[in-house]
Amino acid sequence: MFYQTIDILGTVAFAISGVLVAMEKRLDLFGVLIIAFVTAIGGGTLRDLLIGNTPVVWMRDLTYVSTIFITVVLGIVFVNQLRYVRKSLFLFDTIGIGLYTMVGIEKGLLAELSPIMCVTLGTITASFGGVIRDILCNEIPVIFRKEIYATACILGGASYFLFTQLPIEESYAYLAAIFIVITIRLLAVRFGIRLPNIYKKEG
Amino acid sequence: MFYQTIDILGTVAFAISGVLVAMEKRLDLFGVLIIAFVTAIGGGTLRDLLIGNTPVVWMRDLTYVSTIFITVVLGIVFVNQLRYVRKSLFLFDTIGIGLYTMVGIEKGLLAELSPIMCVTLGTITASFGGVIRDILCNEIPVIFRKEIYATACILGGASYFLFTQLPIEESYAYLAAIFIVITIRLLAVRFGIRLPNIYKKEG
Amino acid sequence: MFYQTIDILGTVAFAISGVLVAMEKRLDLFGVLIIAFVTAIGGGTLRDLLIGNTPVVWMRDLTYVSTIFITVVLGIVFVNQLRYVRKSLFLFDTIGIGLYTMVGIEKGLLAELSPIMCVTLGTITASFGGVIRDILCNEIPVIFRKEIYATACILGGASYFLFTQLPIEESYAYLAAIFIVITIRLLAVRFGIRLPNIYKKEG
Repeated sequence: MFYQTIDILGTVAFAISGVLVAMEKRLDLFGVLIIAFVTAIGGGTLRDLLIGNTPVVWMRDLTYVSTIFITVVLGIVFVNQLRYVRKSLFLFDTIGIGLYTMVGIEKGLLAELSPIMCVTLGTITASFGGVIRDILCNEIPVIFRKEIYATACILGGASYFLFTQLPIEESYAYLAAIFIVITIRLLAVRFGIRLPNIYKKEG
Repeated sequence: MFYQTIDILGTVAFAISGVLVAMEKRLDLFGVLIIAFVTAIGGGTLRDLLIGNTPVVWMRDLTYVSTIFITVVLGIVFVNQLRYVRKSLFLFDTIGIGLYTMVGIEKGLLAELSPIMCVTLGTITASFGGVIRDILCNEIPVIFRKEIYATACILGGASYFLFTQLPIEESYAYLAAIFIVITIRLLAVRFGIRLPNIYKKEG
Repeated sequence: MFYQTIDILGTVAFAISGVLVAMEKRLDLFGVLIIAFVTAIGGGTLRDLLIGNTPVVWMRDLTYVSTIFITVVLGIVFVNQLRYVRKSLFLFDTIGIGLYTMVGIEKGLLAELSPIMCVTLGTITASFGGVIRDILCNEIPVIFRKEIYATACILGGASYFLFTQLPIEESYAYLAAIFIVITIRLLAVRFGIRLPNIYKKEG
């Protein structure tokens, strides 16, 4: 119940981030819907394709599609009010990537993949919806350029495998890892921490 | 036989639309071939991947690849004559999306997915070849911006599930749905109907 | 052992080509890592998805991920020295596409696909990592525009099926095909041979 609620709030936050980017590009109604959709389910879809878990999860559970659809309708109707909930949205999104990271790791464990691949799947689940959103909107993905986002997923996901080495219950390791993803993301945004840009010195 | 002919005509129309976009971008021979190819089979490929229907359909049936190849060769040779068949091309394309929508729905029914997912698969089959074409050509997909295209697939596809509730034969429902996709698309183009663009009011 | 060494050298060359493109776009550390990664494993991933060979190969064998990771770290540290090994890199890359072409063909044969589809898979394996790299970097893929690259894979791959008709050992056909891919690529670069660009004459 708790996880499911967070899952839906995360989906809502991802979908709205899609709506906002799509509106900036002045897409039409269908375009906005699709961008919201891929932002919310793109990462999980890529994960499911890579491990061969098909039909992909949103085809088998209408919760996602309905949640996204309702979110887009409300998002368009109340677009001028969105600024007032910006902080809540950021919070949902951040909690969302924490949870999505662990969802991806669990799927990797189920597929009996190595810890490194599980963390990779977690990071893909949490962050590649945004990558596909940016590609469809003809932008270089923002997480490749200037945000600590995937890095939070990678560090938090890796911490999970450290925690499971400790003599604590698995569910605590799970929650601690989510907490770490969220904390890194919040600190990075709060203090404007970014990864270094890489380029060749001239001359 | 009838369906197969339409299927091939639809493939031809999609491939030529790819050739035209690729030539506008002044791609080389290989680029034109690939763009024609993904335009014609991209939607069906994405559908097959999402439901786990692999190897994807064009790998198992050479008809598609041969049709596309011949189309591209003829398209390049007779490029200056293409304008004279523009109306026929538009008609093939329109019939094509009608048929492709129902092909996608059938695959969804075979995979025992819900009606909403079947319509989604139909829409993906009919319209995502063009989306991948536009992404490869570094454009925001045209169907996200200014055309009633996917919308015709969605409405026509949904009508199929309404028709199957009526006491009529399944094949009539099938044909009626194709007819509705085609009609909506034709009317939208004829009368310049577009979905509203969505953006935030300033100030 | 020999094949594995070439495979790793090819992966290194592909990863570095990703690093160079990503740095030109001034991506951050994570962006550079991802671009290097998709350049090196993108083609094989697409191939595995199309034939349903999941989990995709790099999820089951850590060699690829470790190789790419080490390459990126070294590539970033020694970026100003990369120019001195440019010729070696080009050679690795060229040997890499030869080998990757045959790897893809073998996978196609295992999946009992027709020769044409095997050559397609070989070409995808060898050249679509670069296509995904360019899309993520918001460029029209370079191999669609101005390089004999995929063409070398197609011709070399096709030659394999001709050679297997001859009364020679299968392994000679294999090596001869790799040799042909490499030769075509080298000759094309050496003499600046390009495919014709296709566009419509005005007026």
